[in-house]
Amino acid sequence: MELSPKELEIPTCKYEYLDHTADVQIHTWGDDLKEAFEQVAIAMYGYMTEIDKVEILGKEEIEANGDDMESLLFHFLDECLFIFSAEPFFIARKVVITEFDKESFSIKATLYGEEFDLGKHPQGTEVKAITYASMQIYDKENQHELFVIIDI
Amino acid sequence: MELSPKELEIPTCKYEYLDHTADVQIHTWGDDLKEAFEQVAIAMYGYMTEIDKVEILGKEEIEANGDDMESLLFHFLDECLFIFSAEPFFIARKVVITEFDKESFSIKATLYGEEFDLGKHPQGTEVKAITYASMQIYDKENQHELFVIIDI
Repeated sequence: MELSPKELEIPTCKYEYLDHTADVQIHTWGDDLKEAFEQVAIAMYGYMTEIDKVEILGKEEIEANGDDMESLLFHFLDECLFIFSAEPFFIARKVVITEFDKESFSIKATLYGEEFDLGKHPQGTEVKAITYASMQIYDKENQHELFVIIDI
Repeated sequence: MELSPKELEIPTCKYEYLDHTADVQIHTWGDDLKEAFEQVAIAMYGYMTEIDKVEILGKEEIEANGDDMESLLFHFLDECLFIFSAEPFFIARKVVITEFDKESFSIKATLYGEEFDLGKHPQGTEVKAITYASMQIYDKENQHELFVIIDI
C-alpha cells in the first residue's frame, strides 16, 4: 500500500495513564486450616516475585491476632506483607504456623526465606492491601480452604 | 543462620490464583476535541503493546456513531478495539479522524498501522472492554480533553 509522507508522520503523544486498580483472588487449601493459612502467605509472596527464586537462608517470627477467623486471616497476611515492606524486607519461601489458636484467634508463625533483593528476585506485582471483600474460610472435616482478595 | 534439613524442606503448592479484575484510566488532550479522540485510540493501543514497535504499513477505515458525545467515544473506541480483535487484526500507530460531526455524533477515521504480530509486537495487557464509568469529556475554548476507563 502506498502511503504519503504526511500519512507516515507520527503525532505527538498527548495522553497519560492515570489510576490503575486491580485485585486478584487467592484460593488455598490444606489438610487442616493451619496449612491453608500457611499456603495463603506463600501465594501472596508468589504474586510479588517468582517464588522459586527465593532461597531459605534465614527465618523470621511473626504473630497475629483477630476477633474472629476472618480478622485473624487479615492480620496474619498483613503481618506477612509488613515484614516484606519494611525492615527486614523479608520474603518467605515457606511459612510454618507454630501456634494456631482457633479459640482466641491468634497465630505464631515462622517465615523461612531471605531478604528481598531485586537483583535476585524478579519484581512481580506490588501487593497494596489485603481486603475483607468476599473472604471465605471453610474449616470442616473434609474441607479446609480459604479465598481472599488482595489489591494489587 | 543454621537451618535444619526439615526447615529447608519446601512444602507442596496448594494454592491457585482465581479471578483477576483491573482497570486503567486514560487521560488525553489536544488542540481540539478531535485530537483528544485520536489520542485516546492510540493510548489504548499503547496499553496493548509497545506502540513504538508498530509501523505504518497500511491503513483501515472505521466509522462510529452515538446518541451523545459519551456514547460516541464509547463506540469509537469499541470499533478501534474490534478491528484489533477480529479480522484484519489491525493495530494502529496513528489515528486520523477525517469526519467529526458533533451535531449528529458520528465519526469517520483512518487508522494507520499494520497487522498485529506477536513476533514483532510485545504482548501488553489485554483490553477487555471500554466502560462508561467516570467518563469525562471537556470541549471548551481552552480545554479539549477526556478521561475514560478501560477494563483490562
